[in-house]
Amino acid sequence: MKRYFFFFCYLFSSVMLCAQESATWIWYPGDFEVWLSNDMQNRRTERGTFFPPFWRMDNHYVLVEFHKEFDVPTDEEIAIVAEGKYNVKVNGKMIPGMPAKLNLKKGKQKITIKVYNQGHVPALYVSGKTVNTSKDWLVTFEDKEWIDETGKASDQSGTTYVKAGHWNFDQPTRFPSKFKLPTRLEQAVSSTKHGSGTLVDFGKNTFGFLTFHQLKGNGKLSVYYGESKEEALGTATCETLDYIEVARSSSTDSTLDLSKAFRYVYIEKQGDVSFDQVSMQYEYLPVEDRGAFKSSDEELNNIWEVAKYTMELTSREFYIDGIKRDRWIWSGDAYQSYAMNYYLGFDSETVKRTILALRGKEPTMSHINTIMDYTFYWFLSIYDYYQYTGDKEFIEAVYPRMQSLMEFCLARRNKDGLMEGLSGDWVFIDWADGLSKKGEVSFEQLLLCRSLETMALCANLLQQQDDQVFYDKEAKLLKTKLFDYYWNPTKQAFVHSRINGKQTENVTRYTNMFAVFFDYLSNEQQQAVKTNVLLNDRVQKIMTPYMRYYELESLCAMGEKDYVMQEMKSYWGGMLKLGATTFWEEFNPAKSGAEHYTMYGREFGKSLCHSWGASPIYLLGKYYLGVKPTSAGYQTYEIDPYLASLQWMEGKVPTPAGEIDLYVSEKKIKVKSPIGVGTLKIKSKSKPKSKNGTIVQLDQDTYTMEVHAGVAYEVDYRL
Amino acid sequence: MKRYFFFFCYLFSSVMLCAQESATWIWYPGDFEVWLSNDMQNRRTERGTFFPPFWRMDNHYVLVEFHKEFDVPTDEEIAIVAEGKYNVKVNGKMIPGMPAKLNLKKGKQKITIKVYNQGHVPALYVSGKTVNTSKDWLVTFEDKEWIDETGKASDQSGTTYVKAGHWNFDQPTRFPSKFKLPTRLEQAVSSTKHGSGTLVDFGKNTFGFLTFHQLKGNGKLSVYYGESKEEALGTATCETLDYIEVARSSSTDSTLDLSKAFRYVYIEKQGDVSFDQVSMQYEYLPVEDRGAFKSSDEELNNIWEVAKYTMELTSREFYIDGIKRDRWIWSGDAYQSYAMNYYLGFDSETVKRTILALRGKEPTMSHINTIMDYTFYWFLSIYDYYQYTGDKEFIEAVYPRMQSLMEFCLARRNKDGLMEGLSGDWVFIDWADGLSKKGEVSFEQLLLCRSLETMALCANLLQQQDDQVFYDKEAKLLKTKLFDYYWNPTKQAFVHSRINGKQTENVTRYTNMFAVFFDYLSNEQQQAVKTNVLLNDRVQKIMTPYMRYYELESLCAMGEKDYVMQEMKSYWGGMLKLGATTFWEEFNPAKSGAEHYTMYGREFGKSLCHSWGASPIYLLGKYYLGVKPTSAGYQTYEIDPYLASLQWMEGKVPTPAGEIDLYVSEKKIKVKSPIGVGTLKIKSKSKPKSKNGTIVQLDQDTYTMEVHAGVAYEVDYRL
Repeated sequence: MKRYFFFFCYLFSSVMLCAQESATWIWYPGDFEVWLSNDMQNRRTERGTFFPPFWRMDNHYVLVEFHKEFDVPTDEEIAIVAEGKYNVKVNGKMIPGMPAKLNLKKGKQKITIKVYNQGHVPALYVSGKTVNTSKDWLVTFEDKEWIDETGKASDQSGTTYVKAGHWNFDQPTRFPSKFKLPTRLEQAVSSTKHGSGTLVDFGKNTFGFLTFHQLKGNGKLSVYYGESKEEALGTATCETLDYIEVARSSSTDSTLDLSKAFRYVYIEKQGDVSFDQVSMQYEYLPVEDRGAFKSSDEELNNIWEVAKYTMELTSREFYIDGIKRDRWIWSGDAYQSYAMNYYLGFDSETVKRTILALRGKEPTMSHINTIMDYTFYWFLSIYDYYQYTGDKEFIEAVYPRMQSLMEFCLARRNKDGLMEGLSGDWVFIDWADGLSKKGEVSFEQLLLCRSLETMALCANLLQQQDDQVFYDKEAKLLKTKLFDYYWNPTKQAFVHSRINGKQTENVTRYTNMFAVFFDYLSNEQQQAVKTNVLLNDRVQKIMTPYMRYYELESLCAMGEKDYVMQEMKSYWGGMLKLGATTFWEEFNPAKSGAEHYTMYGREFGKSLCHSWGASPIYLLGKYYLGVKPTSAGYQTYEIDPYLASLQWMEGKVPTPAGEIDLYVSEKKIKVKSPIGVGTLKIKSKSKPKSKNGTIVQLDQDTYTMEVHAGVAYEVDYRL
Repeated sequence: MKRYFFFFCYLFSSVMLCAQESATWIWYPGDFEVWLSNDMQNRRTERGTFFPPFWRMDNHYVLVEFHKEFDVPTDEEIAIVAEGKYNVKVNGKMIPGMPAKLNLKKGKQKITIKVYNQGHVPALYVSGKTVNTSKDWLVTFEDKEWIDETGKASDQSGTTYVKAGHWNFDQPTRFPSKFKLPTRLEQAVSSTKHGSGTLVDFGKNTFGFLTFHQLKGNGKLSVYYGESKEEALGTATCETLDYIEVARSSSTDSTLDLSKAFRYVYIEKQGDVSFDQVSMQYEYLPVEDRGAFKSSDEELNNIWEVAKYTMELTSREFYIDGIKRDRWIWSGDAYQSYAMNYYLGFDSETVKRTILALRGKEPTMSHINTIMDYTFYWFLSIYDYYQYTGDKEFIEAVYPRMQSLMEFCLARRNKDGLMEGLSGDWVFIDWADGLSKKGEVSFEQLLLCRSLETMALCANLLQQQDDQVFYDKEAKLLKTKLFDYYWNPTKQAFVHSRINGKQTENVTRYTNMFAVFFDYLSNEQQQAVKTNVLLNDRVQKIMTPYMRYYELESLCAMGEKDYVMQEMKSYWGGMLKLGATTFWEEFNPAKSGAEHYTMYGREFGKSLCHSWGASPIYLLGKYYLGVKPTSAGYQTYEIDPYLASLQWMEGKVPTPAGEIDLYVSEKKIKVKSPIGVGTLKIKSKSKPKSKNGTIVQLDQDTYTMEVHAGVAYEVDYRL
């Protein structure tokens, strides 16, 4: 598309058209994200019935002012398109009417445009040779400018301007309000008679709009969707369905309005309805194919590919939990999607959109998704984003909303300075039988502590020294309490909670494993936690891939990568053995057959394509390819490859500047990076050799080598 | 309409249809008001250019849950209509699909309906024999109900339910989102050639949509509106205009899209455009004709009638300031409209709508209309509303938003506990040349003090004892400061302000006159204020009817009713003598001709139909007919008639139960009331006589008589 466009410009020397290439639709930051997420999250149906979220949905500002000052080099004409009613001022002087074109004179020109739209987000697109809408425009939702009785404007403005929000709406005719994900045709792999109806199989779990070809007649179609065959055939209990009235004399193709998740579709006809075949329009978010992983282990490769497809399906307008059921944005789930994304598509726009949509806007009256832990993951996600992308601008934009959310949290602490579930607070942690949420749960204090540290880091980054001192102090105070109140010296582990000010006896994995990769523990404590909790079968096992993610991460962080490789293969491999084409919301190997599909007391309640199921992408990228940034945006990073049981592996890890390419066998490491300075760690029985790299010995069998951008390194070593 | 409807029901015994009569559309309280006020306030144009407000416009909640529990006497069918996507639960069990009809069984039934709508207000209409939407339904914008892994709902809800908002949308097909004020045809009184165009005169200032009859041809119409002839002919400077492209081969009537204010319209044609004549669709709020006033003074009667028409024009979707220019809801202006309304239409719905629209919703980030004094009038308006209507339910509904607004105010006090204009605060007071807004203005402290007293009164009414104690304490503290900091013992008056902690020398009317009718002054202080300020020509005169209202009210309160009658006749009579058909935003008798029309540095900047110009309605009702409630909702009230220079007067004062009828001449008083117990005050040289009333002597020439509901009293007395 882009290539054609430039070609066109070149041919006709159409300056105006080319200039438009650099303009983009802008809005009040977060507003499009709020609006689009409302739209997306209210598409859920349960057996045909509308099923919306239970938390407050925010709304866009209906009246927004945009402005920017330009130094126009020569007279130029600008074109203005807005979603909404608007007016235009140039250097404070109102232009009559609602001009679509405007001539600007050479010189300093301040363009101010006010857009009103109650139905959807006020958005603006201005394009000219040099005057174009961009993220540098300033916006406000109240200009607080009044006049006195002589018409003189007030000199005491209280207006707060922030930088405009934007995405990829780069053409004047691509209206933000018309946003839709793209689709492409996909065919079913089989269609068979079953009972009184037809069972269609699309070969793997998928997402989109069903098309009935050559649909004709009068009557009704009943369409039952299933992520499993059992679900599609379970017409009384399947989670999603469509009942369609048909009344058409001539046959035409008909695509349904609402996208659904399914592998199987079971269709029953009533009356004299007929159709030719069924296909689908696969609906997807276009994401560049950047991360890659391949190894000598075919099962592991399959796990990676199925995880990748699971991520593809759950990456939509925003990162959602699962494709069949909620289709909502859950902060805890999204937090993991972000992490996987850093090793796959490195799609920063979707991370930012999701963070903004989750936060919504003031007033802050409840936790994100009403879940206390989900508020904390939201804080954590922001610093992670900065670490991987180096995008300080976004931290700057979101910082005020971080502050107000933290204010909300701190105001909800009890007299001991701890957070417990108040009325309306959902303490979630994990789906686990009988997990107590009572009293002051240690896990929540741990996450709050980490969130306060995140606030301090961001404050420091933005040079907000007073803030930094405050958040630092609060974090340290809470960390001390964490150990004082929850570390049990006898058990040598954190206990789960305090009730009525007293430690309970219960030890769970959550706080302990997070404390490991938050690096809160001494070596001694870490070893104790490993033995007493993580590798202790008497401590309640984790059944969700959601918490498996953290469990395995903490084991990796403690060097148990062989064990984790084994676990990964048995747990995710276990789902593959059961025919999974996407990874599940929960997996208990002890169950069998259709038992696997039940959850929430419903026969097919479980989501079989759940984003948190895709974590091998993250684990393989970070702990086996071993790539992670050590300073923001990969200015420095570490490559610490670990083969475990593999003979070889190769992969790509995306960075802001391109991909780090890595090949690792038992004898050779090849690496090429487009960015910064990496430190390659090499475990080798003898000193490794490299033609163009400098090997430094750290200890008996550990070496490092600096990796510089643009150089293809080869290292020979002996594992 | 209603009569036909009942007739229809009677004929067909259609229980369902009759039952619908008792259902009404409901929404989250305040949301329709916010939505409609956004719509209305963004209709302003200035010379054809969109001209929106400069404060934040709020927005509705996009996802709202409605519920109510019913005890259904026999099985019944209900019909459901919603503006938006919805789902229905009965006793917590989801009903499949989006049902338009539903059968309810006899017995306890809890109906819960969730409606989603991003474009406009989620609204609901349910009608059945006994199950109907009404103001008693409970609503929330977040239900905060989650489930655990077994599907069990949480037992720790944090949901806040409030009573539903509603108005008069009593038919299922009267969608709130389709709301429009009614219109009726009005003809011009003259149409004359003028220069190259046509000048049309509608005989008086009016408001509505212009219609061109038999419009035909190709070209352009330029339409210039004027509240004065000069303005309509001032094509380069008139405030509002329309440029209309015409391209029609056959002639049809064409009514313009946007309503405008005008008495005169000047029309110029370009190209071969032709039309037959011009009429208009007068757009109005239907308000019952309840208050009345007539007297022996024809000029005064005219003043009352023109004030009434001014109120009619400025009472629209909400009470607006003026019809030509802003067409916005200004709290200070609305506060006066409410008061006039209590002596005219007694239209409580419009008062409530306006109060809700002004307040908007959280977060509170600025003063109402950005004006500090306008925030305070908002508080004052609520207790006034209660006093006149006795509607405690509304106080209950609005109290949380009162609290949060007061919190906002108190947090903005300086170290001395006083409010001064911070960045973004407009200190308005009045349009007056050179009026200082610097430092701590005494007027703002006075209004804050009164607002705190209002909070205490409301808290007491709602039995919020802690709140009452708090607000009481704060009010008393501030009152003490008011006298300590601003009362100047030498000048025997309040000074205008403190700057850098020091009293200024300046004395203005504002604080002094408000202190009178707030009853903050001792008798001695009152007399001093009257002499030194109110009747002192060296103190800057008031030029706006806005502040004239309070000035005259304070003089009335001090018994200067003869003087006020004279002032009223000269000031408002002065506008009439200049040909006013509605009352103005500002009137300076010293100006002449078209000078009167200038304001804000613009030739026709002044509004010639401004709600605050209509105050004679209030003054005549409250201080001459002399009727005012002494307890909430006219349970008790006072009738203290005063003829001043009149031979006789008669009038009606509306109450929640009907009108108090009053006739007063120099010899006779006739009174009949539909409500409560009134105290008629009679000044008489000899003991008055009444057949059915009991006269009690108070002092030498003052008597009282109790007035009971439903009794027609006649009193003979000697003035």
